Amino acid sequence: MREIYEFTARTLQTKHPVPFGALIVNTRSGERLMRATNAVRRENDPSSHAELRAVRLACKKLKRINLAGFTMYSTCEPCPMCMANALWARLDRVVFGATIADANRHCLQILVPAEEVSGRADMRTIVDGPVLRGLCNALFTHPNMQRAFRTWTGKKAETATGEKPARRMRAGAKRARTPGDETI
Amino acid sequence: MREIYEFTARTLQTKHPVPFGALIVNTRSGERLMRATNAVRRENDPSSHAELRAVRLACKKLKRINLAGFTMYSTCEPCPMCMANALWARLDRVVFGATIADANRHCLQILVPAEEVSGRADMRTIVDGPVLRGLCNALFTHPNMQRAFRTWTGKKAETATGEKPARRMRAGAKRARTPGDETI
Repeated sequence: MREIYEFTARTLQTKHPVPFGALIVNTRSGERLMRATNAVRRENDPSSHAELRAVRLACKKLKRINLAGFTMYSTCEPCPMCMANALWARLDRVVFGATIADANRHCLQILVPAEEVSGRADMRTIVDGPVLRGLCNALFTHPNMQRAFRTWTGKKAETATGEKPARRMRAGAKRARTPGDETI
Repeated sequence: MREIYEFTARTLQTKHPVPFGALIVNTRSGERLMRATNAVRRENDPSSHAELRAVRLACKKLKRINLAGFTMYSTCEPCPMCMANALWARLDRVVFGATIADANRHCLQILVPAEEVSGRADMRTIVDGPVLRGLCNALFTHPNMQRAFRTWTGKKAETATGEKPARRMRAGAKRARTPGDETI
C-alpha cells in the first residue's frame, strides 16, 4: 500500500494531481504486475479509473482476461465500476486505503461499498480495508489536490470551496507529465 | 431497442456470438452516436462490456467525458460496472431489454440492479426497463448463443448444459468477423 501511495503522491507535483492509484501484485510472491493512476481526463474516458486501468493494462500484458492469483492495492476503496471489474477479472483480493465516504468529502461518488458489490456477485474477490487510511487520505487533503478538485466537475468541489469550478479541464489538453503508468 | 437488438443479433451468425449490445443516441433527436457489442475476449479486457465500450467510444468520438444529453439502449440491464460508468459519464437515461436475472440464467452475474446503483449515487441517470424483454431474451436462448455459452468460463454454463466448458477461448485467438462496432 505504501508503494502505491508513493507512486500516486508523485502526481501531486504535476499539473494533473490525482488521489487514486492502484497496484496489482502476484498474491503469493508479491511481485508487481502493474500499477496505474486515474487518467479519466488524460484518456478522455470516464472508465479510466486507476483500478480499472490497472486491470486493463495487466490483462493486456498477460494476454488473458483472468487475474486469479493476483491482488490489487488501491489508495481508495474501488467504486462499483472498479469493484465489479475486479470481480469480472477474478482478482483474489482487493485491499484499499481511504474509503468511498472519505473520497465523497471531496468529489462525487456512488455510495455502494466494495464489499457489498463483492458479496452480491456470483464470483468471489476478498475485500480488505481501510488500510493506512490516514496516509491515503492525505492524498485527498494535500493543498495541490485541493486546488485540483476545484477544477473537477461536480458539486462537492464547489461546496467545499464555496467557489464555482475555475474551469473544466479541456478534453485533448496537453498531456500532463505524470509519473507515468506502467507500460504494457 | 429494436435497432440494437438487430445489431447484436448479427453476432449470432459469427464465430463469437454475444447477447450484449448497447446503443447511444441523442436524447432529443434520437440520432445515433455510437453502438457496440461485448468484446471482452476480442479485446482481452474484462471491462469491454457493450455498454462500457459504447460510452468509451462515444467519449473518444466527442472528445469529452460528459455524455449529458444522451440516452443508452442496452439489450441487457447494465451490470454495476456498466451502470456506474453510465453515471460517471452523466448519461441522461439508460433503457434496457433483458434483466440481470434473465442473463443470470445463462452466465455469472453481479446481482445489483441498475436502478439501485443509480439511486445510491450523487449523480443521476434515469433507468427504464425491461423493454422488449422477450425479444432481447431471445438473444440469450438462440441455439448459437447457447453453444457459445458452453465455452464461457463459469458455473452457469456448466450447470445449464450438464457439461464442463468445452474449452476456454484462447486469448489472442483470431479476431471474429463480427458486424463491427462503430468506428471512432
